[in-house]
Amino acid sequence: MGGSLVRLIAERGEDIAARTGVRLEVTRVAVRDPARDRDLPLEPSVLTDDAASVVTADDVDLVVEVVGGTDPALGLITAALQAGRPVVSANKELLAAHGAELFELAARCGVDLLVEAAVAGGIPLVRPLRESLVGEDVLRVIGIINGTTNYILTKMTEEGWGYDEALAEAQALGYAEADPTADVEGFDAGSKAAIIATIAFGVGVAAADVHHEGISRISAEDIATAGRLGYQLKLLAVAERFDDGSVAVRVHPAMVPDAHPLAAVRDSFNAVFVEGAAVGDLMFYGRGAGGMPTGSAVLGDVIDAAVNLVKGTHASLGSFGPATFRPQSELSSAFYLAVEVLDRPGVLANVAGVFGAHGVSIRSMEQLESPDSAGDGEPTARLVFITHVAREADVLATLDEFRGLDEVRSVDSVLRVLGAG
Amino acid sequence: MGGSLVRLIAERGEDIAARTGVRLEVTRVAVRDPARDRDLPLEPSVLTDDAASVVTADDVDLVVEVVGGTDPALGLITAALQAGRPVVSANKELLAAHGAELFELAARCGVDLLVEAAVAGGIPLVRPLRESLVGEDVLRVIGIINGTTNYILTKMTEEGWGYDEALAEAQALGYAEADPTADVEGFDAGSKAAIIATIAFGVGVAAADVHHEGISRISAEDIATAGRLGYQLKLLAVAERFDDGSVAVRVHPAMVPDAHPLAAVRDSFNAVFVEGAAVGDLMFYGRGAGGMPTGSAVLGDVIDAAVNLVKGTHASLGSFGPATFRPQSELSSAFYLAVEVLDRPGVLANVAGVFGAHGVSIRSMEQLESPDSAGDGEPTARLVFITHVAREADVLATLDEFRGLDEVRSVDSVLRVLGAG
Repeated sequence: MGGSLVRLIAERGEDIAARTGVRLEVTRVAVRDPARDRDLPLEPSVLTDDAASVVTADDVDLVVEVVGGTDPALGLITAALQAGRPVVSANKELLAAHGAELFELAARCGVDLLVEAAVAGGIPLVRPLRESLVGEDVLRVIGIINGTTNYILTKMTEEGWGYDEALAEAQALGYAEADPTADVEGFDAGSKAAIIATIAFGVGVAAADVHHEGISRISAEDIATAGRLGYQLKLLAVAERFDDGSVAVRVHPAMVPDAHPLAAVRDSFNAVFVEGAAVGDLMFYGRGAGGMPTGSAVLGDVIDAAVNLVKGTHASLGSFGPATFRPQSELSSAFYLAVEVLDRPGVLANVAGVFGAHGVSIRSMEQLESPDSAGDGEPTARLVFITHVAREADVLATLDEFRGLDEVRSVDSVLRVLGAG
Repeated sequence: MGGSLVRLIAERGEDIAARTGVRLEVTRVAVRDPARDRDLPLEPSVLTDDAASVVTADDVDLVVEVVGGTDPALGLITAALQAGRPVVSANKELLAAHGAELFELAARCGVDLLVEAAVAGGIPLVRPLRESLVGEDVLRVIGIINGTTNYILTKMTEEGWGYDEALAEAQALGYAEADPTADVEGFDAGSKAAIIATIAFGVGVAAADVHHEGISRISAEDIATAGRLGYQLKLLAVAERFDDGSVAVRVHPAMVPDAHPLAAVRDSFNAVFVEGAAVGDLMFYGRGAGGMPTGSAVLGDVIDAAVNLVKGTHASLGSFGPATFRPQSELSSAFYLAVEVLDRPGVLANVAGVFGAHGVSIRSMEQLESPDSAGDGEPTARLVFITHVAREADVLATLDEFRGLDEVRSVDSVLRVLGAG
């Protein structure tokens, strides 16, 4: 991405100067190996392996950090801000761990810390949240912010592939790493969700505060059933603020109604859906990764910070209070549940009774044929339920009780359902 | 919308002050009839019918113009800017006629002129275009920016209604005016497209420069055929810049492939799709009209301008060159054409020959049964073509020649096709 930025500055520099009056020049670049051959429009003399000297050098007015990870990025950014240099960072791991403290440090130092590229790649999201919606009461932000998992789920949906097959294809295309854990278990989306929540709600949220469930246990049957019922399966990052000021941030797969704009977000695209009290529903859609889209987001921030520097001003996110988190068990959602039961008279009544006893209301039920999973000749049926909105604790208690019932063979799928109820 | 803004400032003022350090106070409001009873959190003493005195009053730091139309809005905004007052305007007619000149006046006066609410209502679009994408080479912007027509086309598609029925329902719901011309013939979308093109490309584009075709001749059959072929019919505003720096801005119905994100924009929602050289495809989606969404956009601009005022700075769009327009006949697009022909041997070969003679290449053809439109007992067939991308002039010449052929009864539908070719 650093290379994309250098290329974009070379290509677009004249036009940017004409439009904004600011001429960008890459004066120093810290890299691991300055001797390595790079096909970039850079004088070799600007390359160094001494990053610490770059961030405070006299001929550096503005620092772009695309190092990734916490160390040494945290120290470098801190030094740059304290030396009065604005910083543009695309580092989601760092910002998901230290975002609020770094934004506050930037404000105290009187310089910009701009992070558009750290969340949702090329999609303008941070600036709209921070500026356009600063007067808006943002209630909830729902994002498809991991392109790898969206690609996998799209292929499972549209090609009928299993999870393993879709993952292998994503790996072959370079969308997924050899160890795909960070993507498929929701860690990557969790980091981005923490940054989004921090900016949208003005409280400090770290990656460690984000509950996450991944997509590795999603079956082809879940996808097919979702499709038949009018839903698309998506990995969602959800950041919510409640009336009492508490927040909840979580990543999990969910069934998205076909008519919801997020349902149409395919392949490796990202989208962030924002629900505001006055503005209603908004969605921001685009490329969440890739050198050029992310480089474009970094460049937008660089120009913004450079123009501010010339004007002697800077943006500010204000101060960040500590977040109060609402426990996951107290959150509410509609649920999709698939349960394998013995095909005997009275079973459905028993199951329905358990739902009722826990205050969970059933919106729809389907009975499907089921393979005889235990191989004992006892006929079984698969029941698929969609509930009305219910407290997670009540749904979990319902499922616990199911697992103790003789008639229930297994609870096979538990998925949240968006916007139903 | 003025009322929504006053309410939002009253409700959100404390929170805005806490976040930004700026306390907003509505000190003067010019209205036609100050004596009329309003259910608004305003002291009666702030109301006046003397708008000219408000925009330059000593206790007014910032002017919000939600008057609409050119007169007296142009004079009021000019006076406010010249008096050093930043202006927030939601006035699309005015900006579509005088946008570039007003932006340049604001820059010369050293104050903000912010217009987020004038295009696509509550959707953050102007700020992302102006700031996030200032370094981006924006190639094309495609918008669904008229909610009334999108509602009508959605109902025709999903409910199978005819145009008249859908329009009547839109009027009953208050989405369409008694005289729906401005919406259904594309004038409203044309004004917004002019403003988008001005900001995206940095050249002066006025509503009068925008070619427009409306939706009033779209038939239920066009919609049904589009659906069968995998498309949704949408009224699109398209602003394009070519390699030679020329631009084209037009509004017309078009067939949008089902897999395109714009195809999923339903009911009265708006969306703007941006194609950038580095960032790739982006889309911004939300409510394009309505008091609260538009009030939210105005409020975002008011806060931005107020914060800038406190900091002693202002945004600037730079200068606007004159636009060079590429003539409509030289634009290229794929086309959908429905032609009624006599059902005789050799007709298809003749028709195909006419396409070929004009260099228009056929991507797909379907032959449908056709009612005998002339009632003369001569059997006819309906041919539906989708072409590859072709020059408009060549397509028009093809259609002219069709109209002179004995075998061609009528050319019934001519629609552009997005993103095919």
